[in-house]
Amino acid sequence: MRSNLGPDIDLAARLFTELRDAGFDGVGITREAYGPGEQKAHALVRAEAEALGLEIANDAAGNLYMTLPGRDRSAKRIVLGSHLDSVPQGGNYDGAAGVLAGLATVAGMRHAGFVPARDITVLAVRAEEAGAWFPTSYPGSHAALGRLPPEVLSVRRMDTGRTLEEHMRELDFDPDVVRAGKGVLGPHNTAAYLELHIEQGPVLDAQEIPVAIVTGIPGSRRLRAARVVGEYNHSGATPRRYRRDAAIALAELAHRLDEHWAALETQGHSLVCTFCVLATTEAAGFTKIPGEARFQLDIRSVQRASVDAMFAELHRLITQIEARRGVRFDLGPETGSQASPMDADVQAGLLLAAQTLNIPHRTMASGGGHDAAAFAQAGVPAGMLFVRNQNGSHNPHEAMRMEDFAASCAVMTRWAAEMADE
Amino acid sequence: MRSNLGPDIDLAARLFTELRDAGFDGVGITREAYGPGEQKAHALVRAEAEALGLEIANDAAGNLYMTLPGRDRSAKRIVLGSHLDSVPQGGNYDGAAGVLAGLATVAGMRHAGFVPARDITVLAVRAEEAGAWFPTSYPGSHAALGRLPPEVLSVRRMDTGRTLEEHMRELDFDPDVVRAGKGVLGPHNTAAYLELHIEQGPVLDAQEIPVAIVTGIPGSRRLRAARVVGEYNHSGATPRRYRRDAAIALAELAHRLDEHWAALETQGHSLVCTFCVLATTEAAGFTKIPGEARFQLDIRSVQRASVDAMFAELHRLITQIEARRGVRFDLGPETGSQASPMDADVQAGLLLAAQTLNIPHRTMASGGGHDAAAFAQAGVPAGMLFVRNQNGSHNPHEAMRMEDFAASCAVMTRWAAEMADE
Repeated sequence: MRSNLGPDIDLAARLFTELRDAGFDGVGITREAYGPGEQKAHALVRAEAEALGLEIANDAAGNLYMTLPGRDRSAKRIVLGSHLDSVPQGGNYDGAAGVLAGLATVAGMRHAGFVPARDITVLAVRAEEAGAWFPTSYPGSHAALGRLPPEVLSVRRMDTGRTLEEHMRELDFDPDVVRAGKGVLGPHNTAAYLELHIEQGPVLDAQEIPVAIVTGIPGSRRLRAARVVGEYNHSGATPRRYRRDAAIALAELAHRLDEHWAALETQGHSLVCTFCVLATTEAAGFTKIPGEARFQLDIRSVQRASVDAMFAELHRLITQIEARRGVRFDLGPETGSQASPMDADVQAGLLLAAQTLNIPHRTMASGGGHDAAAFAQAGVPAGMLFVRNQNGSHNPHEAMRMEDFAASCAVMTRWAAEMADE
Repeated sequence: MRSNLGPDIDLAARLFTELRDAGFDGVGITREAYGPGEQKAHALVRAEAEALGLEIANDAAGNLYMTLPGRDRSAKRIVLGSHLDSVPQGGNYDGAAGVLAGLATVAGMRHAGFVPARDITVLAVRAEEAGAWFPTSYPGSHAALGRLPPEVLSVRRMDTGRTLEEHMRELDFDPDVVRAGKGVLGPHNTAAYLELHIEQGPVLDAQEIPVAIVTGIPGSRRLRAARVVGEYNHSGATPRRYRRDAAIALAELAHRLDEHWAALETQGHSLVCTFCVLATTEAAGFTKIPGEARFQLDIRSVQRASVDAMFAELHRLITQIEARRGVRFDLGPETGSQASPMDADVQAGLLLAAQTLNIPHRTMASGGGHDAAAFAQAGVPAGMLFVRNQNGSHNPHEAMRMEDFAASCAVMTRWAAEMADE
């Protein structure tokens, strides 16, 4: 029976069009978390799932569960999920592709008359686009897992100024249940979580590979409000030895840290290091030596040791530069996150599925964060598939090709069918 | 008779106090060019010169000439000058010190009954603080020398929005004469121009030397609107090899150009190199690789070859960095000025005067520009004395000590007396 199993790509294609029409804001796609845009997307997806005869449920945080019942309803289920919100003026694929992939997969099973040994649930997660809407990470997933820290209910959506709790109540969800930590999913009832997502970088496109199996979601160490303080002086009248130039001190730090990154890569480390902001301040101007500069630094790797190696170099360089250039670095608060390796068995199963289907693929670490990190941190075996995508993500130009989506959904279907019967 | 010749420091000290009272703006000293602040300063100085019995005159641009007549009225005169305007919220010494030094010098001669062989004119120049008021350099000096380009009369004062010509007319000066290029001074009637000025950098204070004889005023090559263009990308999802990071490209350029400066200094070059602005743009933000950065670059030296060596390295580095980092530099328009070496005979005379008086001194290049550059460029033998000063210039904390001013005025008096009789 499995040989004629395949995802219903027509269904997904139709839903992509409906989602685009519903979410177009004149420039890109806007689906506000716990707002009208996300609601419209949930309604469209829910209607499709109802038409397929799936079991429909919401949890207290408004996450949407669309379940194809298995032969053993008490067996641990498989979850195929992602989010339906988007950044403002974003694209149509970031998030939605994973939900529609899940629907296409279970729709294909239903069409083929395939009844899995265990439940397969398509999960539409709320509010993943943290940073754009609520200043917290994965509130929807954490709530589904019963792991949302209660204080997060008080964070405010950045555009409305209203709390996460208020937004939940407005849509008739139940923040009190969320606060009590009553989740729906966990290692006790979930065999695996698989999330399909567009690749947010250029690697698959550059290498002409349609699909990647993700090895892990990186952890990070971040400085958002770091600065260098020197002394403003006359750019003509101050010889080199009397300068305390904040801009050159920062330029040296950035350049030498970048060189250290290159050296670590040749030693086999895999990481990214970005000075997202690197700037003299408003007080700078012509004929002045800059007395202050500020920077933001974002270092990420699936390997904690690689991030730590960069921070050790950062501190070594700062000590050197402070002594030599008469400046003072103030790094401000450091934030960060733990890395989340993807489950080895899930990765192996996905690789086998891709090989069996003869679909070109590679393994790679994720760059950005995803709901899969929340599941991995909760102890649920988690995996991810990346789909080749042009023009990055979080912009109106996201350009996933449907044939690449179809190839990825085929891997998902094959894996889910095998996994369901294990 | 010359042995009892000395500057009238009490007169200068009294005038410094009067100027400070007249120019205090609540924070620092403001003497707007062709505005009430400069007018008040001119009135105070003029009254003092009248009390001394000096010959008083204005030229068509409002420069003020206060002349101690010499024995031969047809001999080339000596000019002791500087400017009386200030930057907004500046200090009391930048400019005024040179005019008061001239007055103290001729007052001392008058008190001693010394009649020089040639006229000695104290010159209060208008509007030297270009950049702060009118976007042009040395309009007062150029007008005195009959060398002001006519189009400069149309530049607008940055705060009032009115033209230089309008400001001149408002004070009853005659821009038509200025336009015709009818100057008062030139090589045909001026033996030398000497300008005393506070040092605008920290060198004399750090080296505990009260006086410097200036070797030259630097030329410059400047970029005020340069930028680097790369590509904005996701800071997590974009591996090193796919990046076109404008910020790191600029950091590398700045750091490596700074290293080249250090190398040139060890080879005996003397110059300054400043990235006055070095900044990612407003579009930068967390989790983005910067796609654009901008910078301002100011390179100065008395030796043109040193500036050119830096620009050659700049272009070499840019070619390398563009190729390696996939970015593009756009340097925008380049501006600059020619270096103005100070007259060798004037320098020698000032050195001899300082040695004779046993006043500790050194030679040094100027960092900033000064009216003396306009005189040198017009072919008038020009020299400068720097006075030790704390806290730089162009700020309310300028802190020249009166004993250092007195030492410098003593050198000026000695030199002027010798020079007058040559």
